[in-house]
Amino acid sequence: MGDLHWTTAITSVQPNEIRLRGYGIDELMGRVTFGQAVYLALKGELPSPEVGRLVDAMLVSSIDHGATPPSVLAARTAASTGASLSASIAAGVLSINRYHGGAIEGCMRLLLESIGRLDGDRPPAEVASEMLAELRAQKKRAPGFGHRIHTDDPRTKRLLALADELGVSGDGVMMARAFEGALEESLGRRLPLNVDGALAALLVDLDFPPELGNAFFIVARVTGLAAHAHEELARQRPMRRIHPTDHEYDGPAPRELGREQASR
Amino acid sequence: MGDLHWTTAITSVQPNEIRLRGYGIDELMGRVTFGQAVYLALKGELPSPEVGRLVDAMLVSSIDHGATPPSVLAARTAASTGASLSASIAAGVLSINRYHGGAIEGCMRLLLESIGRLDGDRPPAEVASEMLAELRAQKKRAPGFGHRIHTDDPRTKRLLALADELGVSGDGVMMARAFEGALEESLGRRLPLNVDGALAALLVDLDFPPELGNAFFIVARVTGLAAHAHEELARQRPMRRIHPTDHEYDGPAPRELGREQASR
Amino acid sequence: MGDLHWTTAITSVQPNEIRLRGYGIDELMGRVTFGQAVYLALKGELPSPEVGRLVDAMLVSSIDHGATPPSVLAARTAASTGASLSASIAAGVLSINRYHGGAIEGCMRLLLESIGRLDGDRPPAEVASEMLAELRAQKKRAPGFGHRIHTDDPRTKRLLALADELGVSGDGVMMARAFEGALEESLGRRLPLNVDGALAALLVDLDFPPELGNAFFIVARVTGLAAHAHEELARQRPMRRIHPTDHEYDGPAPRELGREQASR
Amino acid sequence: MGDLHWTTAITSVQPNEIRLRGYGIDELMGRVTFGQAVYLALKGELPSPEVGRLVDAMLVSSIDHGATPPSVLAARTAASTGASLSASIAAGVLSINRYHGGAIEGCMRLLLESIGRLDGDRPPAEVASEMLAELRAQKKRAPGFGHRIHTDDPRTKRLLALADELGVSGDGVMMARAFEGALEESLGRRLPLNVDGALAALLVDLDFPPELGNAFFIVARVTGLAAHAHEELARQRPMRRIHPTDHEYDGPAPRELGREQASR
Repeated sequence: MGDLHWTTAITSVQPNEIRLRGYGIDELMGRVTFGQAVYLALKGELPSPEVGRLVDAMLVSSIDHGATPPSVLAARTAASTGASLSASIAAGVLSINRYHGGAIEGCMRLLLESIGRLDGDRPPAEVASEMLAELRAQKKRAPGFGHRIHTDDPRTKRLLALADELGVSGDGVMMARAFEGALEESLGRRLPLNVDGALAALLVDLDFPPELGNAFFIVARVTGLAAHAHEELARQRPMRRIHPTDHEYDGPAPRELGREQASR
Repeated sequence: MGDLHWTTAITSVQPNEIRLRGYGIDELMGRVTFGQAVYLALKGELPSPEVGRLVDAMLVSSIDHGATPPSVLAARTAASTGASLSASIAAGVLSINRYHGGAIEGCMRLLLESIGRLDGDRPPAEVASEMLAELRAQKKRAPGFGHRIHTDDPRTKRLLALADELGVSGDGVMMARAFEGALEESLGRRLPLNVDGALAALLVDLDFPPELGNAFFIVARVTGLAAHAHEELARQRPMRRIHPTDHEYDGPAPRELGREQASR
Repeated sequence: MGDLHWTTAITSVQPNEIRLRGYGIDELMGRVTFGQAVYLALKGELPSPEVGRLVDAMLVSSIDHGATPPSVLAARTAASTGASLSASIAAGVLSINRYHGGAIEGCMRLLLESIGRLDGDRPPAEVASEMLAELRAQKKRAPGFGHRIHTDDPRTKRLLALADELGVSGDGVMMARAFEGALEESLGRRLPLNVDGALAALLVDLDFPPELGNAFFIVARVTGLAAHAHEELARQRPMRRIHPTDHEYDGPAPRELGREQASR
Repeated sequence: MGDLHWTTAITSVQPNEIRLRGYGIDELMGRVTFGQAVYLALKGELPSPEVGRLVDAMLVSSIDHGATPPSVLAARTAASTGASLSASIAAGVLSINRYHGGAIEGCMRLLLESIGRLDGDRPPAEVASEMLAELRAQKKRAPGFGHRIHTDDPRTKRLLALADELGVSGDGVMMARAFEGALEESLGRRLPLNVDGALAALLVDLDFPPELGNAFFIVARVTGLAAHAHEELARQRPMRRIHPTDHEYDGPAPRELGREQASR
């Protein structure tokens, strides 16, 4: 044992035995969803199947959002020069930061701070108004509210409905709704919780540390980045000029999920 | 519509409507697993719940493999200098290439080529022997067989068992087993299919193109990279010397998956 | 000395003594140009001041080429999301590959192969025509010739003139000119050597291995990437849509280099 | 001119005319050093040949520091997995941050703040002591002082001597020396200015903004990263375990710079 010896609490590897946070990885395979395993890897404990179903839904919500996000444009730009798939995906991941995906962490910190101020008896609406006033004084906006494209984001509604249904909604969701109300009151118009804000509320209620907010988003979005980098290589010529907005969808027409396709 | 106009077939985004390959993303949330959504995003079609369960198991199998893989060391090295979580993860992704993770693609190409030679009536063992002889003549090794640590990788066994059970095993699995037999015969000792090889066989039977083999591995492993980068920041001092092998596991003791924790 | 012991021939570091390829780094400082030091670091030997002047000119030629190259767009895209300067530069570097910057290596290989066929007595024009015919048969284009924007690239002319003046031009430059002639003959119009091709010819004559062609370009262009990432942060708002071509220059008006500003 | 139109002040590109900050790039080639061009690209103005000589020396000072820095280990780790040279270099660049290279920016901010407090008549030693006391109260250390290996860094001495000789030393160098004195007084032992601190002092006196401190270091170190990635590919087998400290130098023996090799 040298003086550079160090320890890690994520995975133990012995010949013919791999354990993630103590669980045999082969025992997990086929019995838990990838969402449950993501939770286990990042948080250290295995969630119930119900929470796992919510985590899966959270990952699905962020898997892709079309060709406009900067992470997609960066991944496609790299792919277009002949980068490998891993280098293209890495270029995309490098573009997930404070202003893209980062609202999850920002909103988690806002919610955690506001929960800390509830103090047992203060009404959530009062705390939310107080914190919005402080943000306004600093000329800052509340992260996790409003969206360039969606006024009524279907992902947000679905996430909150699932969290309610699965019994996960707690102080995070309560405060997120309080902020939504306080914003409408102070602005005179709706500035709804966006998908980053909904993810933030659920990650707070799942007791994730805020510094993992961005990680959670990356875990989901890497699939979209891989799909875009692969499509760029398959369908486009090298070194084309990639317009950031002048693109349209030409994939399968709208279709419904059949009952036999659904896991639940 | 300018002259830089382009199209993409992955996701359509309209105000308050996001469709992945045609399916409403809110409709998918809570009803399909993340594994099913990964398959949909990369391949374009939604797999059945059974195939989804296999895809989830494949993703779980590759979620992490401890602190030894170079992608983990690169991610921790970057994190140790003060890199953001996204930059640390990107440094890890950049270390997933031909020699790390890349055996999946290599083995997929081997299996596809061998399947192409089956011709309806040639015995798989004969084709495998023939191709091994060709590789030997080029002083190359068959990708996807043998492991530095595991002689009987529990992930491989579990993946093949699940594929058999779920009715996914096809020519890919058949040829992978034929190669295993042919290798034992020619070497006089077992050089078993490793987890990369098993993933390759299943991806072939799921009709994934080989150039997505590495992407599939990255999608799974990014979670492990995030966990390691986060642990590095949380537990270690900046700029420590990161020994590549002199580390040990100090996390939860071995534990069993309870029935109530399993989704299936 | 453990069993992981390894060696490197680039830099020795002892307390209060740092030697690059044997030379005290403090002795080099102020006495050689950065171009000479780049050559020393990559090739292992210190070039004469004359060669150093050429290497400096080669680095200057590639320091930046405006906002159109994909590496710049990738770096700006990352910067626009809140990436650090190092992460933004890395995203740019990831976009320097076969189709962007990579023509240097491709052209070096072409020139080296053609030099190998000269055989003492075959006329360069004949070898060039022969190799172009082979490329045409494979439906490939000769790398290092033609440019989207420049028909008479001032950098190419200047590089070749300097190489002639400094006595560096050798077989690489000779063959590059032979290819230029053979291309004009076969196409019926000029397809001039571009800056990548000129760099390739000089790197061949400086005896650089072709696999360092891309490295040489990266060393030069990283400065431009840093300038663009910094300008993006300083002048633009986060998350803007970055158009790949609809931009214009608003910096200092054309000006001449004063005699007192020139080092030579 | 669309609504995404934007401007940049770095390089103008017209057919057959490329101007960096207004200067024809072909006019710069062969007449200014790469160091002068780096200064021009980053700062916008062309420095005198004397300042250019200093900038060249600053770049040479940081070109490489052996195999121990994390950026080198990350680049080698990526290269070892089969990453391309550009991806390997990018992995290295991602490891240049607050704790590695970042002391330049930190020390620049310290020096700028202290210069702001000089107020015309306060003695530099008093300001330095005051600021050190404030740092101690915050349990922070002064960035740019002390080194793990060097007690008397030859690069620092050479940089300051050159700056004095070339008439560049100003308030930055003065305050750096004041901090060195104040540290010795308060600690009872020398904690000398390190190379990051010396670069910081000179960049302050050259009027660089602190947020470019890291960029300057990256521009220099990318050459070392390229050399290490290339050596890894050329001399080592894929996927080796890269020990962070158990390595030794086996390159050319110590040698002196000949007069005929020096540009000055």
